[in-house]
Amino acid sequence: MKGEADFIDRLRALATHPAARGLADDAAVLDIGGESLVLTHDTLVEGVHVLPGQDPADIAWKLVATNLSDLAAKGAEPLGVLLAHMLGPDDARFLDGLAEVLAHYDVPLLGGDTVSGGPPRVFGLTAIGRATHRPVPSRAGARNGDGVWLTGAVGAAMMGLEALREGTAADRGADSTAYRRPVALLAEGRALAPLVSAMMDLSDGLLLDAFRLAEASGVSLALESGAVPIAAPEQRRLDALSWGDDYQLLFTLPPGQEPPVAATRIGTVEPLGFVPLFLDGEPITNTAGLGYLHR
Amino acid sequence: MKGEADFIDRLRALATHPAARGLADDAAVLDIGGESLVLTHDTLVEGVHVLPGQDPADIAWKLVATNLSDLAAKGAEPLGVLLAHMLGPDDARFLDGLAEVLAHYDVPLLGGDTVSGGPPRVFGLTAIGRATHRPVPSRAGARNGDGVWLTGAVGAAMMGLEALREGTAADRGADSTAYRRPVALLAEGRALAPLVSAMMDLSDGLLLDAFRLAEASGVSLALESGAVPIAAPEQRRLDALSWGDDYQLLFTLPPGQEPPVAATRIGTVEPLGFVPLFLDGEPITNTAGLGYLHR
Repeated sequence: MKGEADFIDRLRALATHPAARGLADDAAVLDIGGESLVLTHDTLVEGVHVLPGQDPADIAWKLVATNLSDLAAKGAEPLGVLLAHMLGPDDARFLDGLAEVLAHYDVPLLGGDTVSGGPPRVFGLTAIGRATHRPVPSRAGARNGDGVWLTGAVGAAMMGLEALREGTAADRGADSTAYRRPVALLAEGRALAPLVSAMMDLSDGLLLDAFRLAEASGVSLALESGAVPIAAPEQRRLDALSWGDDYQLLFTLPPGQEPPVAATRIGTVEPLGFVPLFLDGEPITNTAGLGYLHR
Repeated sequence: MKGEADFIDRLRALATHPAARGLADDAAVLDIGGESLVLTHDTLVEGVHVLPGQDPADIAWKLVATNLSDLAAKGAEPLGVLLAHMLGPDDARFLDGLAEVLAHYDVPLLGGDTVSGGPPRVFGLTAIGRATHRPVPSRAGARNGDGVWLTGAVGAAMMGLEALREGTAADRGADSTAYRRPVALLAEGRALAPLVSAMMDLSDGLLLDAFRLAEASGVSLALESGAVPIAAPEQRRLDALSWGDDYQLLFTLPPGQEPPVAATRIGTVEPLGFVPLFLDGEPITNTAGLGYLHR
């Protein structure tokens, strides 16, 4: 882990271009021809990000939806995707899911690359979007006194993964849908972009991602665990706050500003205290165990 | 192989957007804000595209240079890259090479993704460029009577790979440089873009790539093997014409047009015959064994 953190620090040091927010933020933002282009790339590795033996149609869905979720966090409208595909025996199912998710979001496949290799299979996707509002939201704008808000609930993907693992969703019923088929909140992101002081999508868990937003903004976030809507049994509340893969939008709004989409206020932005995150008044001193380190 | 070809056919059928040339061409071209954006993604898989145990600094170099070569084939100026990096024990060397190649081409790292996984390690990169001339060159514009031209020589990467494999370049001397450190011909691509009727970069071997250019243009190319400059012993001429990884530019020019960069005329565009490629008057009936199927 130490070596990995060093690597990412060195990588960030290389990324000195003004557009290079993609390593510390949800996506890179590149100004061209009077437009702001939003660019993101995410990779799913079999056994790390997807279950071994998971339906390839669900993998294709998740690959596209999670990248579009990064665009949603920027209030961007998708222009297209590039696929980095490792060929495998189940490619027909993968293509079924890919066709389905691209049609669902009305996003064109622009190109990409097919390679042989693996196992493990590796699935990569680059998503390209156009910002609908500038300045483009980032994780870095939260200010003292802002409200902290969350679309939807957290914990649904956790429950879905458990259902899938336990085989109770062997028939691919609704129970595992939240894990298998995450939703990119593109319309919500576009509606929020002109109003938010900071925004990100939740991929690695509410607490870990809130910690990151606070660090990027140079503030502390004071969250109330009881205020967070959860899609899980009450006794799993803390798990739900720490689990990833929900792809809700976490954002901050200036005092008095109400969100134009369904959302819940879950805390307040404070001046930077001795840690970036407080939960029910208790300091969160480090990120170990706080969420899913999504590598 | 049959399954793979089916997959790629189905993938291409999904890519119906006008910008979606990236699956059958070197890169996707997306018009935005009065500019044409050129987008490409290539993946290198350990054991498939790079030698096991190859210096990670060379892998990083090759990853960036091969993607920039796709931009060169479009006459595009690079705007930045997104890295899809699988973490490994040798990341410090990888970063050394990455910093070196980005500085060499003056291209910013904009963002990306780091994941754990492998072996085999998988290295992905998305390159984004801005077209300097429109219409943006493609593989599809070669016309009857055009000259077929090639920058530089082929076979240098083949000789370099053999030197590396045989250990004669254990000291990383000049012999293996062409394989380890391919060059993206960005300036040449920009100079050629306003003049060419078709252009591509050679990644999988002159003959296989010429076959593809002919197919995309709906013509036949008649090449003279003896006219092709080779960077290999004369008895290896046919190998040099079939080997990949040289990243020279293959292009066609209208009759009488001379190239503005150093290049050699190696053939003529003819009306589509019963095959897309003739070598010294002999028809090339299929692509099996013609070059490296670069997956």
